[in-house]
Amino acid sequence: MPHRKNFGSDNQAPAHPAILEALIQANSGDTPSYGDDPRTARAQELFRTHFGPAARAFPVFNGTGANVLGLAALLRPQDAVLCARHAHVDVDEGGAPERFGGFKLVPLATEQGKIAPEAIQAELGGVGDCHRVQPRAVTLSNATELGPVYTPDELGRIAEAAHAQGMLLHVDGARICNAAVSLGLPLAEITTRVGVDVLSFGGTKNGLLGAEAVVFLREGLGTDFLYLRKQGMQLASKQRFLSAQLIALLEGELWRENALHANRMASRLAAAIAKAPGLEIAQPVQANAVFARLPRRAIDELLQRWRFLFWDEAQGLVRWMCSWNTPAADVDAFAADVLRALTRGSR
Amino acid sequence: MPHRKNFGSDNQAPAHPAILEALIQANSGDTPSYGDDPRTARAQELFRTHFGPAARAFPVFNGTGANVLGLAALLRPQDAVLCARHAHVDVDEGGAPERFGGFKLVPLATEQGKIAPEAIQAELGGVGDCHRVQPRAVTLSNATELGPVYTPDELGRIAEAAHAQGMLLHVDGARICNAAVSLGLPLAEITTRVGVDVLSFGGTKNGLLGAEAVVFLREGLGTDFLYLRKQGMQLASKQRFLSAQLIALLEGELWRENALHANRMASRLAAAIAKAPGLEIAQPVQANAVFARLPRRAIDELLQRWRFLFWDEAQGLVRWMCSWNTPAADVDAFAADVLRALTRGSR
Amino acid sequence: MPHRKNFGSDNQAPAHPAILEALIQANSGDTPSYGDDPRTARAQELFRTHFGPAARAFPVFNGTGANVLGLAALLRPQDAVLCARHAHVDVDEGGAPERFGGFKLVPLATEQGKIAPEAIQAELGGVGDCHRVQPRAVTLSNATELGPVYTPDELGRIAEAAHAQGMLLHVDGARICNAAVSLGLPLAEITTRVGVDVLSFGGTKNGLLGAEAVVFLREGLGTDFLYLRKQGMQLASKQRFLSAQLIALLEGELWRENALHANRMASRLAAAIAKAPGLEIAQPVQANAVFARLPRRAIDELLQRWRFLFWDEAQGLVRWMCSWNTPAADVDAFAADVLRALTRGSR
Amino acid sequence: MPHRKNFGSDNQAPAHPAILEALIQANSGDTPSYGDDPRTARAQELFRTHFGPAARAFPVFNGTGANVLGLAALLRPQDAVLCARHAHVDVDEGGAPERFGGFKLVPLATEQGKIAPEAIQAELGGVGDCHRVQPRAVTLSNATELGPVYTPDELGRIAEAAHAQGMLLHVDGARICNAAVSLGLPLAEITTRVGVDVLSFGGTKNGLLGAEAVVFLREGLGTDFLYLRKQGMQLASKQRFLSAQLIALLEGELWRENALHANRMASRLAAAIAKAPGLEIAQPVQANAVFARLPRRAIDELLQRWRFLFWDEAQGLVRWMCSWNTPAADVDAFAADVLRALTRGSR
Repeated sequence: MPHRKNFGSDNQAPAHPAILEALIQANSGDTPSYGDDPRTARAQELFRTHFGPAARAFPVFNGTGANVLGLAALLRPQDAVLCARHAHVDVDEGGAPERFGGFKLVPLATEQGKIAPEAIQAELGGVGDCHRVQPRAVTLSNATELGPVYTPDELGRIAEAAHAQGMLLHVDGARICNAAVSLGLPLAEITTRVGVDVLSFGGTKNGLLGAEAVVFLREGLGTDFLYLRKQGMQLASKQRFLSAQLIALLEGELWRENALHANRMASRLAAAIAKAPGLEIAQPVQANAVFARLPRRAIDELLQRWRFLFWDEAQGLVRWMCSWNTPAADVDAFAADVLRALTRGSR
Repeated sequence: MPHRKNFGSDNQAPAHPAILEALIQANSGDTPSYGDDPRTARAQELFRTHFGPAARAFPVFNGTGANVLGLAALLRPQDAVLCARHAHVDVDEGGAPERFGGFKLVPLATEQGKIAPEAIQAELGGVGDCHRVQPRAVTLSNATELGPVYTPDELGRIAEAAHAQGMLLHVDGARICNAAVSLGLPLAEITTRVGVDVLSFGGTKNGLLGAEAVVFLREGLGTDFLYLRKQGMQLASKQRFLSAQLIALLEGELWRENALHANRMASRLAAAIAKAPGLEIAQPVQANAVFARLPRRAIDELLQRWRFLFWDEAQGLVRWMCSWNTPAADVDAFAADVLRALTRGSR
Repeated sequence: MPHRKNFGSDNQAPAHPAILEALIQANSGDTPSYGDDPRTARAQELFRTHFGPAARAFPVFNGTGANVLGLAALLRPQDAVLCARHAHVDVDEGGAPERFGGFKLVPLATEQGKIAPEAIQAELGGVGDCHRVQPRAVTLSNATELGPVYTPDELGRIAEAAHAQGMLLHVDGARICNAAVSLGLPLAEITTRVGVDVLSFGGTKNGLLGAEAVVFLREGLGTDFLYLRKQGMQLASKQRFLSAQLIALLEGELWRENALHANRMASRLAAAIAKAPGLEIAQPVQANAVFARLPRRAIDELLQRWRFLFWDEAQGLVRWMCSWNTPAADVDAFAADVLRALTRGSR
Repeated sequence: MPHRKNFGSDNQAPAHPAILEALIQANSGDTPSYGDDPRTARAQELFRTHFGPAARAFPVFNGTGANVLGLAALLRPQDAVLCARHAHVDVDEGGAPERFGGFKLVPLATEQGKIAPEAIQAELGGVGDCHRVQPRAVTLSNATELGPVYTPDELGRIAEAAHAQGMLLHVDGARICNAAVSLGLPLAEITTRVGVDVLSFGGTKNGLLGAEAVVFLREGLGTDFLYLRKQGMQLASKQRFLSAQLIALLEGELWRENALHANRMASRLAAAIAKAPGLEIAQPVQANAVFARLPRRAIDELLQRWRFLFWDEAQGLVRWMCSWNTPAADVDAFAADVLRALTRGSR
């Protein structure tokens, strides 16, 4: 089945055709490099439209860059970042935060991948003690890496807990559009309005060829970020091509449509297999991922024909990820295969 | 004259249409992310074709990333890099080598921006002394930032001098195609064959939308580079789109044609103004840049209508850069304006 | 009671008089700086005597330096260190490992502050994956920060588990002499013989004025350490004065006598209060610390007259630390006060 | 002649007996660790006495630590430090500034090792440009590494030039006492009064066993330095022993007497050999170093019997360094040997 959609990751999808069209439009004539071009200015406007008048966005190449630089911009040398245990930034950035930023990530216990405000309080024992790193930012992923989505209320309480301690709230928004769409809310309602200070705005997993942005949502943050982005090797010379992608995503409804489709395909998949014998949906399906537990034999059989992530072998936990381009027919075919594998397995 | 070509930098040019076409072709269906895709494998083959069978290429986003990571891959913590005084890597990377790599750049005196082999010897006094950083790599830019191109013979002697001391030779090849074309040589003749160990292969300034590569040219180097690229925030998830650009450049003659055109336009410009009153061509025009000294009044007048770099105000030195898309007509119009400004100035 | 011994930390004690005597002896005439002096060579011999013929010791200023540099010497940029959750190196080095070494510490769950070999296995899921840091060393403290001492058997199994995965074992030996004395064993029996690769040898807490050493216990490790120590700002110009202290500690029985006394005073204290009403000895007393839980009111009362650490306010947990100079009379007086506070408290 | 004084470096000398006496006095009873002890408070007072009421001093272990941390405390990530070409901090700190601080040192051309205010101006071309590091501090050594001493007037003009650009002035004062004594001035007259912002106060080369201090001379600087010192691995647990040394140096006249003696011995040596045939005093002898050029044959002969530094083999340049304990008789014996070697050489 070489042409079939895979359920491995939303970054295995191509770019939406509108993005390629935008690049073609942008590819006309000379324009200033390094961000002094009209498209970057236009992208800036759109970020203000979506995130409020204080928003300042800096296009970068990838999510690692967005997360590491967005956090580094908030920290003094003695500062540390609190994060969910097993957050992407802690386990999937290859040590980039420590290597480039020199800062410590302090893992917090979570529920379904979500941080509770109380967990922040527990890490404040060393404030003012020079032997301890100083907690200065909390980072969380929305949608989380395990699928669930933080609600505005949850976010607001975390922001409040952080701000009460002089800390800032950073959101890894690799799938922020999926989160917003899941809640049926504008982007600002789960970021600026609830007290998020800095956002890694994710585009690549939502249909771009490759572009993200660090977005400072409050005045007074990121004032030296132009330097940090350069030093962090994330300054594009032909920045118009990053900005053109972001414009195409944010100018109309593409950000919403792409995310909505991905989320719906995940729901469709979850619904189709929910009652399969021997299968357990491991997390509420709120964005574009389905986490499931099923017998090893069925997993092995499925892996012969489909590509997806064996998230935790010990637990028999797999991740099936949908994206903007996942065809409903492929979801149905995959669900049928899952059911077949489980039925066979249960006989 | 808003539509006129500018002479500011070759990174202000758009991408060549063939590159956009390649992206469109690459934008079909799902493919593994992070470099496990067929296009990245194909790009790998092409680098071997151009640079020899030992070459291993790692696509990255930009030149800063290529330079910093390519050098960092060669160094132990105590090691330093010798570079030309005022090399791009020393003065134009915003401190990224020190911040990310933690290594010292030791500037060497140069002639026309070129390192002499003898200058290397002079920096070896501290070898084996723990109070001193240990020179471990030499880096040079070809074409140089001042325009001249290192010949194979010059490169060979520098490589020999470096290797004789257990050092490695890195080339910042942001304009390596311009250098090869200037000499009428294949790429390997100014890299692998003359002893270069690692190359930052530049694509963006030669007509790509945005893609470079770190290319290790000898066995045994860069064995941990996959980790370093991730940690250095230069790993693209949708890497097919970087590889597709590199393929389009290297598969046929595009790398050569783009560079050749840019070089020819620089020569055309230099020829047209060589005898202008009060103007001095400051460096041999061997690649796509023209460095010239002329009276301040003429510079100011030209800057009202054209965009270019005032390289050194104290010296009255300007840089006029041509690129793959510079129209001959614009060169002629600009040259005419230069002559006019100088003639007026000299009256 | 201004002259009374405090139970705050063994680093609040003075140096043993023999150490001052050794400094006076060393303070005669000129001698080469930076470690090329006869005393440093003599200290080297003594480390070989205690730790075996492959041992190479590098005097450094303090424990932070010893830990961070000893670990950094083992790691490639992508490598990480597994440590006990709440290990000193993770929570009490002020972020120095991340800032200077750029490496990630991965906390493991523990029992009584001790790592179990099985916990290592659980962190190996990302080996070979460039998105993950690569576990390369395990570090543990002996004696642990909570008081208990690892036995040779426990150490041997951890070393075996680490080595089986190509990892190295580092020991934070700020209280290594207390551990050896607690077990009645020579130093090599809990280090070199059981597979420890690198040791932070602690002297300051065991009666020195201020000197520690990074000791590589196997051939082939730490070959560039002279450079790393300089770069890590831990190279003493008048190194004879560090070496003289280490000689005085290791040449005769001082290392043992100091640690033995401290351990005995902790045992004496524990024995005296073990049956106090409302008090629980929280950890086995095996080295020179007593961890106890007691009512808040009693703690507050004691803190008015004695200096010690309120380890965990939520748990009502305190640490009482003895040192080489703790008088038995002070232990008895303190124990009496503890009993008094508890009795009063329980009425 | 194994017992003879050597002229290698002032860090090969022992500590002054008064320093050992001070350590013995300090070695009594328990005292709070990490700087919360009365001696550290007393040292603080003395620094205020010598450097003015705004001075805040932080004892550290060595000069590398003092320089790297004192500079790092002034810098944002994008900032760079201007220094004299061949300054100790640039060539003799083993890359510690880049490794720990991540900052670039920009070498300035000098006269006799001294920076001219004009050289600062020349490095400001990239201010505000994110491709360039941002000059934020100037560092100079007083006395310089080549022997000459900056006058208050010279320092004042450099401070003025730096401050006019929003930059700060750091002084590497490894030999600041020698400089002050050379000019016959109190310490404040060549630091606080002339606009120096931060000082690495050197004690070890002026008769201490081992102690330096980072001294912030103006309000508002170094507010987070307690954290940085810990993170920089320069926080002593038994800090009383660093402070006791600094007290003994600064409380009476020891700082002056030690430096005065060393300077006088250098003058005595210079005077005795000034007219030797074939010898040239290469730098004005203003502190405790004599730099001389003489024939290679004479140097080799002297090196058979005396220890000193062959500073630059190509130039035939040697450094003869005196210290607080250099006996006049040894200076005379050495001078006689120099004359003998030269006379023999000239025959």
